Amino acid sequence: MTTICAISTPAGSGGIAVIRISGKNAFEICDRIFIAKNGKKIVDAKANTIIFGQIEGQPQGSPIQVIDEVIVSIFRTPHSFTGEDTVEISAHGSLFVQQAVLKLLLENGATLAQAGEFTQRAFMNGKMDLSQAEAVADLIASQNAASHKIAMNQMRGGFSSELQKLRLQLLDFVSLIELELDFSEENVEFADRENLKNLAKNISEKINKLIASFSVGNAIKNGVPVVIAGETNVGKSTLLNFLLNEEKAIVSDIHGTTRDIIEDCVDIQGVAFRFIDTAGIRQTKNEIEKIGIERAFQQIEKAQIVLCLLDCTKNIDELQPDISFCHYGLDTQSQKTILVFNKIDLISRDKIDFIKELYHRFDCPKVFISVKEKINTENLIDLLIQKSQVFKIQANDVIISNIRHYEALKNTQTAILRIIDGLQNHISNEFLSQDIRECLHFLGEITGEITTDEILGNIFSRFCIGK
Amino acid sequence: MTTICAISTPAGSGGIAVIRISGKNAFEICDRIFIAKNGKKIVDAKANTIIFGQIEGQPQGSPIQVIDEVIVSIFRTPHSFTGEDTVEISAHGSLFVQQAVLKLLLENGATLAQAGEFTQRAFMNGKMDLSQAEAVADLIASQNAASHKIAMNQMRGGFSSELQKLRLQLLDFVSLIELELDFSEENVEFADRENLKNLAKNISEKINKLIASFSVGNAIKNGVPVVIAGETNVGKSTLLNFLLNEEKAIVSDIHGTTRDIIEDCVDIQGVAFRFIDTAGIRQTKNEIEKIGIERAFQQIEKAQIVLCLLDCTKNIDELQPDISFCHYGLDTQSQKTILVFNKIDLISRDKIDFIKELYHRFDCPKVFISVKEKINTENLIDLLIQKSQVFKIQANDVIISNIRHYEALKNTQTAILRIIDGLQNHISNEFLSQDIRECLHFLGEITGEITTDEILGNIFSRFCIGK
Repeated sequence: MTTICAISTPAGSGGIAVIRISGKNAFEICDRIFIAKNGKKIVDAKANTIIFGQIEGQPQGSPIQVIDEVIVSIFRTPHSFTGEDTVEISAHGSLFVQQAVLKLLLENGATLAQAGEFTQRAFMNGKMDLSQAEAVADLIASQNAASHKIAMNQMRGGFSSELQKLRLQLLDFVSLIELELDFSEENVEFADRENLKNLAKNISEKINKLIASFSVGNAIKNGVPVVIAGETNVGKSTLLNFLLNEEKAIVSDIHGTTRDIIEDCVDIQGVAFRFIDTAGIRQTKNEIEKIGIERAFQQIEKAQIVLCLLDCTKNIDELQPDISFCHYGLDTQSQKTILVFNKIDLISRDKIDFIKELYHRFDCPKVFISVKEKINTENLIDLLIQKSQVFKIQANDVIISNIRHYEALKNTQTAILRIIDGLQNHISNEFLSQDIRECLHFLGEITGEITTDEILGNIFSRFCIGK
Repeated sequence: MTTICAISTPAGSGGIAVIRISGKNAFEICDRIFIAKNGKKIVDAKANTIIFGQIEGQPQGSPIQVIDEVIVSIFRTPHSFTGEDTVEISAHGSLFVQQAVLKLLLENGATLAQAGEFTQRAFMNGKMDLSQAEAVADLIASQNAASHKIAMNQMRGGFSSELQKLRLQLLDFVSLIELELDFSEENVEFADRENLKNLAKNISEKINKLIASFSVGNAIKNGVPVVIAGETNVGKSTLLNFLLNEEKAIVSDIHGTTRDIIEDCVDIQGVAFRFIDTAGIRQTKNEIEKIGIERAFQQIEKAQIVLCLLDCTKNIDELQPDISFCHYGLDTQSQKTILVFNKIDLISRDKIDFIKELYHRFDCPKVFISVKEKINTENLIDLLIQKSQVFKIQANDVIISNIRHYEALKNTQTAILRIIDGLQNHISNEFLSQDIRECLHFLGEITGEITTDEILGNIFSRFCIGK
């Protein structure tokens, strides 16, 4: 096993930068470039202590010189993040110093860490299971309270320890069933089929819950998808801009979306929303325009919340529910629709009452606002927060947000159902054992008891370098 | 004195982020949000040790929850960067975690650090003098070996400790002279005038050296200015692009330059160059064009190196030295000129020889290249490195690169010369003491023995937050 090193703090210059070294020779390598103020060697230092000193070396063949005054933190195996001997050099955060220290470490026998290699070593050394390791990457990427909480729960054990326990029980059963196979001529039964059925049902239930949590987890991780739909010129873009600026929080582009659908994420009161602006919808005979509208309807179906935006200044005929575009949302997607009547600053009190009457029979939430004049906009925010409550997680909720886990759980579920089915139909031990083995395999994929180089490569390449 | 906190690592997400807390209550505040794995309190921990544990809090009014698993490093006064009790929390580098930890610290009694406030406290607590504190900012900003070395020398004491010693000697003299004033009726002489003259001369010499080093220091800090001059279409922009891309190093825009002069910095073999592209120069009667050309000539005068670029494909008449624009550089700026003959891929061997003959009598370096075909371009790089050797500093060279120091040194020099002059002309003790006091003042400004809030404000606001 090589000794690896990398800059672990964010890229760029700043007050402090941390260069991390992990592996069998971490102490020896650091001692070659570090001179402690008190003359001590890192190799002799106690675990979990800090030494002040300087990094010395010869950058670009110049005479030996001081690169920086630094503090080094010493961690001894197995009590470190990776489980290996580890040194963290805390240097001044200059780009030159960071590169110079890294270069000296490489010249003195360390190799550059791959993306995620520190965490991969932590996994390899049994410091965490695979789903916990994955949570480290999610934790680092988390930008809001909800996605942070999911990642934190998962990193601290979360669902994987429970799955591990269930997997061990299932493993006991398969051993017994395979023992029965060895004694097949004697027709013995070591494994209690009733208990096995109960265990399978128990696993199935747990897994169902986890699978069901994925839509919530995914919404939290990527933002609750909210479509803003409406005819042209009702104020969709103005509303989008208002919502994105409302809470001056982290606003980021979602990459990879088609150019005609505008998406943006924003954190409002701790909930991440992904607002999706759609093309204007209207009754049309134009075939090309119909395609654009069709696409907007697809967005509406995928959304968790639909803001149906209407322009109150339109004439009464156009505002009729069965004529206006929103009949679509009200008919088929009423659970997730919020009716938003915009531009109330431009109409009379009477007209508002009239419109209220027109839409009285629909029991979805309604709000009368003026985005431009900021009238009632806080009510709209409240409605959004209310509707998103289903995506609020409790402290101990176990929620999965990782597509890899989702797929492994779906595969586990298929195998479990086959076991239950097989037990009911008294299938042969050969088939039963095969089904259980398959189930064990998929469960093991989640926790990392079963891994392939490909799986590991996929997972850790998502990490940043230095973690 | 408040307890301050800030994120000290570069902005953004990464493997690790460090949040630093310094001040009288640093330990108590951290103990309110940190739960050690081993149950210990930070306030009881030994200096220079590391504790593993978790940060707990209630972000956005939710129930208490784990924000992150972290390690904290404990430094006790006076053995810390600031000289105060200091804790460094090393957390996962997620944006959310960084903000959440910072928020918890603020809620528990810390205040947000101003830019440079940690270093300002180090200065206030006598951990470093003012020029050393300034070197911390330069060190963090350093992007190449030379500017790093200047900053490092300065941070480790550099010239300021010597200036401090000279200042103390001068202070002794002024005390004696002022004592003489008290006994003025008795006409005694406590201060040996000959020794004072020697000291003044000694200081003057040292300061002259430092003042002279500024042009080197400035070139190192901001890049050795290299002007690329030549007629239109000789390949100036192609050469600029080539030089900037040659060493895929840090390339950055220099702000604040006029739009018609293009500047860019690049690090080549450890030397920072600032390449300046100028408008094409030619003989012209057009008044407006003359202004542009005038500006190019101004750049040539300010430059440390001038690349005079000629197009070999021009006809012989145009290439005559006394006709081509470069006669300007050769006549007045020959020390810094490199003659660069471009486009040799398009001409015959004979023509090259002919051109060599034409320019034979000028003894500045000449190089025949084709930028487009990359012929001999490495020779040009070698010439640049050679010419810049004057800007190469030795390990113990004392070089100033700070305009504030430069100005204080110039003022010191004026005062010193007045002292020497005064001694020769036997001016009265009143005037002599006043001149020495002025000299002491300017010397003290450099090391920080004399400061004003304005000076301190100017210096530390240049820092990044968290340092």
